Amino acid sequence: MTHPLDLATQLTPRGDGLFEGRTSPDYWNMMGPFGGTTAATLLRAALEAPARLGDPVALTVNFCAPIAEGIFEIELIEARTNRSTQHWMIVMRQGEAIVATASAVFAARREGFEHQPATLPVLPPAESLKPMRTEGRNAWLQRYEFRFAEGEIRFEPKADGTPGSAYSSLYIRDLPERELDFIALAGLSDTFLVRIFQVLGTLLPAGTVSLTTYFHTDAAGLAAQGTKPLIGVADARVFRKGYFEQTAELWGMDGTLLATSVQTVYYKA
Amino acid sequence: MTHPLDLATQLTPRGDGLFEGRTSPDYWNMMGPFGGTTAATLLRAALEAPARLGDPVALTVNFCAPIAEGIFEIELIEARTNRSTQHWMIVMRQGEAIVATASAVFAARREGFEHQPATLPVLPPAESLKPMRTEGRNAWLQRYEFRFAEGEIRFEPKADGTPGSAYSSLYIRDLPERELDFIALAGLSDTFLVRIFQVLGTLLPAGTVSLTTYFHTDAAGLAAQGTKPLIGVADARVFRKGYFEQTAELWGMDGTLLATSVQTVYYKA
Repeated sequence: MTHPLDLATQLTPRGDGLFEGRTSPDYWNMMGPFGGTTAATLLRAALEAPARLGDPVALTVNFCAPIAEGIFEIELIEARTNRSTQHWMIVMRQGEAIVATASAVFAARREGFEHQPATLPVLPPAESLKPMRTEGRNAWLQRYEFRFAEGEIRFEPKADGTPGSAYSSLYIRDLPERELDFIALAGLSDTFLVRIFQVLGTLLPAGTVSLTTYFHTDAAGLAAQGTKPLIGVADARVFRKGYFEQTAELWGMDGTLLATSVQTVYYKA
Repeated sequence: MTHPLDLATQLTPRGDGLFEGRTSPDYWNMMGPFGGTTAATLLRAALEAPARLGDPVALTVNFCAPIAEGIFEIELIEARTNRSTQHWMIVMRQGEAIVATASAVFAARREGFEHQPATLPVLPPAESLKPMRTEGRNAWLQRYEFRFAEGEIRFEPKADGTPGSAYSSLYIRDLPERELDFIALAGLSDTFLVRIFQVLGTLLPAGTVSLTTYFHTDAAGLAAQGTKPLIGVADARVFRKGYFEQTAELWGMDGTLLATSVQTVYYKA
């Protein structure tokens, strides 16, 4: 059985660095595919390139326009390959129109000095936290298990009208369970619901315009995580003039910081 | 008198979205131009485009290869323009080779809900902190005034061999003084010396491969800062397998968070 994420990110090579894909109902969001799935799809084009060197280190995705249900085309451009690093530019089109752009840095990573000043967030045991109910909600939410320790979005504005905390911590995993790899991690890095919903306690027009994810280990480091859930935290530092910034960390259960991400999000409030 | 940053980032249009520039000795780093100046130059291509909409919200720069002294060419590609957002792809070449790529998101920003959960770092008064000595060092360091409150790089490993803190806080400004705008802020977002020097207390091979900066106000918000120094903080969460992640914040003296940035940095240790 192919995992729905692998189906959703599947690409058919069309030659000359072009690939064709199709949006998946399994990861549908309000107005288009879940952004994390789009990020994973763009990354996959580079991951599967015969000329690919090493593992992804950085991925930036710019969401240019809503992606319509149906076919899209990806153009993969090898901007530069050095001895141990490689730079890709990636463009997603529907018809003639660009709907997303991305850049990815790959590298052959080597053992050496290792240091993790960041500390693993402390959460109650996963079994003690109830999974968020996702039945009847946007399809992509049903492709993940969210066990919130703090900051589950409730769509209830605070009684005194002041902004709520932007912080969330949770256990998160793919549903059905899936071995961790860069495709899954790229998707997971965007599963932190937009902070403004939580801060204002209400649904309002908002959407990510740019997402940057850094990967902090190689393919073997991810494979070692298996299908265990990850620990995630998300926060936001500033909401101003229609855009806010959102940060996230994704940790392995063994205390390894696997990925960090930032995104800038449009909002109307 | 034209400010050296304006000279260093100066571009001559060559038609069809192409621009020619030249590296500046004023911002020379060890092996090429200071990355912040390259980021500012790439952003300037979009800022000066006749089709430009609004102000920059996000800028990602990928440093693909050392930039040699001399002429470079910039290609500016308008990926998508919507009603209130605009996406650019930017490529820098020397000869046929790509030396840097970038993406920039611009937006027409509007007043509305404003909220800044982040808190201004507390530093002693600027006048009480001595500027870092930059005479005889790489030219770009002499184009900035650094008044460190914490974490000035000393190139002295700790006696017990353990890693030092990656955190720094300082007052930072352009030298000569310059009114704040997006060009200056893009440069300032990369002035936080690579954290590994500080953590290991030694100089070693290291270089930024990708830098993402988010801008949290519009042109008027920056202009209001005038020539006052900014307050900057930088930190790092993880160093592993040849790459580390570095984060930074740039604050106005009035307590406004003006920019946040992340970068992933290659190191050999």
